[in-house]
Amino acid sequence: MVDKKRVLGLHKKAGGKIEVMPKVMIDNEGELSIYYTPGVSYVSEEIKGNADKAYDYTSKSNTIAIVSDGTRILGLGDIGPYAGIPVMEGKAALFKKFGGVDAVPLCIGTTDEDEIVKLIKAISPNFGGINIEDIESPKSFRIVERLSEELDIPIFHDDRHGTGVVALAALLNSLKLTGRGKGARIVVNGAGSAGFGIATQLISSGFRNMVVLDKNGAIYKGRESGMNPFKEEIASHTNARRVSGDLADMLKDADVLIGASERGAFGKDHIALMNGKPIVFALANPYPEIEYDEAKDAGAYIVATGRSDKPNQVNNILAFPGIMRGLLDSRAKAVSFKMLHNAAVTIARSVGRRLSTEFIIPYALERGFAFNTVPKVAASVAESAAAEGLARKAISFESEFRNAERLIRRYDSMERISKRFLVGEGRR
Amino acid sequence: MVDKKRVLGLHKKAGGKIEVMPKVMIDNEGELSIYYTPGVSYVSEEIKGNADKAYDYTSKSNTIAIVSDGTRILGLGDIGPYAGIPVMEGKAALFKKFGGVDAVPLCIGTTDEDEIVKLIKAISPNFGGINIEDIESPKSFRIVERLSEELDIPIFHDDRHGTGVVALAALLNSLKLTGRGKGARIVVNGAGSAGFGIATQLISSGFRNMVVLDKNGAIYKGRESGMNPFKEEIASHTNARRVSGDLADMLKDADVLIGASERGAFGKDHIALMNGKPIVFALANPYPEIEYDEAKDAGAYIVATGRSDKPNQVNNILAFPGIMRGLLDSRAKAVSFKMLHNAAVTIARSVGRRLSTEFIIPYALERGFAFNTVPKVAASVAESAAAEGLARKAISFESEFRNAERLIRRYDSMERISKRFLVGEGRR
Repeated sequence: MVDKKRVLGLHKKAGGKIEVMPKVMIDNEGELSIYYTPGVSYVSEEIKGNADKAYDYTSKSNTIAIVSDGTRILGLGDIGPYAGIPVMEGKAALFKKFGGVDAVPLCIGTTDEDEIVKLIKAISPNFGGINIEDIESPKSFRIVERLSEELDIPIFHDDRHGTGVVALAALLNSLKLTGRGKGARIVVNGAGSAGFGIATQLISSGFRNMVVLDKNGAIYKGRESGMNPFKEEIASHTNARRVSGDLADMLKDADVLIGASERGAFGKDHIALMNGKPIVFALANPYPEIEYDEAKDAGAYIVATGRSDKPNQVNNILAFPGIMRGLLDSRAKAVSFKMLHNAAVTIARSVGRRLSTEFIIPYALERGFAFNTVPKVAASVAESAAAEGLARKAISFESEFRNAERLIRRYDSMERISKRFLVGEGRR
Repeated sequence: MVDKKRVLGLHKKAGGKIEVMPKVMIDNEGELSIYYTPGVSYVSEEIKGNADKAYDYTSKSNTIAIVSDGTRILGLGDIGPYAGIPVMEGKAALFKKFGGVDAVPLCIGTTDEDEIVKLIKAISPNFGGINIEDIESPKSFRIVERLSEELDIPIFHDDRHGTGVVALAALLNSLKLTGRGKGARIVVNGAGSAGFGIATQLISSGFRNMVVLDKNGAIYKGRESGMNPFKEEIASHTNARRVSGDLADMLKDADVLIGASERGAFGKDHIALMNGKPIVFALANPYPEIEYDEAKDAGAYIVATGRSDKPNQVNNILAFPGIMRGLLDSRAKAVSFKMLHNAAVTIARSVGRRLSTEFIIPYALERGFAFNTVPKVAASVAESAAAEGLARKAISFESEFRNAERLIRRYDSMERISKRFLVGEGRR
């Protein structure tokens, strides 16, 4: 585990993990009059009356806002907007490093749903996309739903969409390794942002032999306690037999168990109830429902967790940079489950011949990931956006692949030459 | 004048004038777990319950928002938030280049005063200061007033505060050159953001023999038409004799004419009415009330305009980077007229022995400006913030001078090594 003093010391030394840099040289009177007054007024006049031209001439084309109200920061809960800033800054750094995406963290001082919707609408002119992060559910679902209807830029909810994509990628490869198909019996334990995100992505991707549980047990159509419109939506596409019961009941004929719950939510006994070659994803963060080794001991054939010190780390970094890259480059009006499905398939395929029970998804810190897998994810999203009529700029797979790779390599080169200005683990 | 095609071409090539860069290295599992999960949660927990610690551990300490609603963009008027983005991005680039300040442009899609106040309050956790820009007056004054009361970070209104500081600096040196003092008769033509900013700064700095005019003529206590609370404020500190009349009437015994109005608002005949060795600042943008040469022909002893191709360019770049640098480094709770006065005195003094009728204020594109004058301005603001009890972090002139110089030189070095990644006039 990382050392607290060291973490605080490095954060203090860095004085924040991101900064805003000019992309143009303003060194003389000529440049000043091109990029600022009076020349810049030509650009303003060009955009006036044609807002979409902001994509051509401003950072809107490459910039997103990461918006959180601080109500569900990591595993820490409702700790307020100030305490959320370090997390959103870390995420912004990852967006640039892995996707060449410029991300502005906005930790906002209101938890009111209407206020949040209004605020995001008001700031939207500046951004090509919005990343909703660490807002408590189901409020976060309603915010995403409302904004998706009212705005013509993609509203990406990483806790939900990103987690859904990476879980789907891991699942596709796990099914391949165990010779299963879309009929596999899947149990999702948890119906918060992650559980809902996984369930809805799997439903959209054609998995129907599924049951989702919340704290009241299996969700089914007609259940009376603890329902909301989002659980109703899940109920109408899962658990066709409308069975009720707890996790142990549901696992008796299950092939796959996906935990999006909390430490200790299931154990060895649960895994023992499952069909042969059970697939177990224990995705609670930072502590999985059951530890990797313990799940293996209990007979799990494939195990995935959020932990970096074990094989098969299910990590949203595998998804959000590439997806947002593709959304921005296609100037997408929205994000769709089809795009997300294609992103997951691309991530799954990128494992290639290395596929094994201990390597079902890529490893983000290999150079090949940022330079090859991310551009492929971006390209699959952009291709999909064009096909669905959701792209302002139709861009082919090949051309987006090259474009995304160029942008990610650009950042990498800049990072390399400016290393001495950056704070790092070994540079205290 | 700059070429439209070239301006549009370079803006398109750059694809936006700013980007968000990581300040830390995230290259391996260890660094990832320090700057993102799970390590970052130590930082969140440290800030939780003590919001001011966000200054220690996040980019809040160096980041401001540039907020505009697009209602008064340059000389273009109400052209909407999208068309305002290129201007705010240019400003953000200048904040970094000249002050080492990270600025996030937010062009917002609401022009409602209450909504704007609410929005800025909601986003304030992320920022160490707010720069209000190109919002129509007097709405902008009310927004600044309300936010200054309700927030404990400085609300800087560049159209008003910045312009006031630079005009004051230019005036101090002009008075010195003409042997005049605080009793000089000053006429300010215009009571929008700039005119109000200049008038209130001059009042705070002890100039009382002054009259301000708006479109209805001289403002005086008791005037009935076209008043508002801000003009009432001006009236109670200027025009003690309560004279009414137009600009020509007011100029008959004037030493100084400051125009913050529009092209053609005054001409040679007006200058001819003034006292000997008249001082004329024609600050309308982008076209001055009267051209530099014309004013000189009419007998003006010292002329200043906003134009870069003539001597004595009154340009806010001389003020906003240094002032914001000082506000951020002292973690100021507010901006005060005393700080702004000291900034103006510092700018005026920096001219040193080069002082002449053709060099009353510094030139921003000389290297000495960014590396010496800006740090001095920052230091004078920080020193003043400490003295007034408005600083969370009391910092001496000397130590802030070194700190500011270091931060500005850091950006300069980074710019130099990353030149090939930047779009510039000569790099098409």
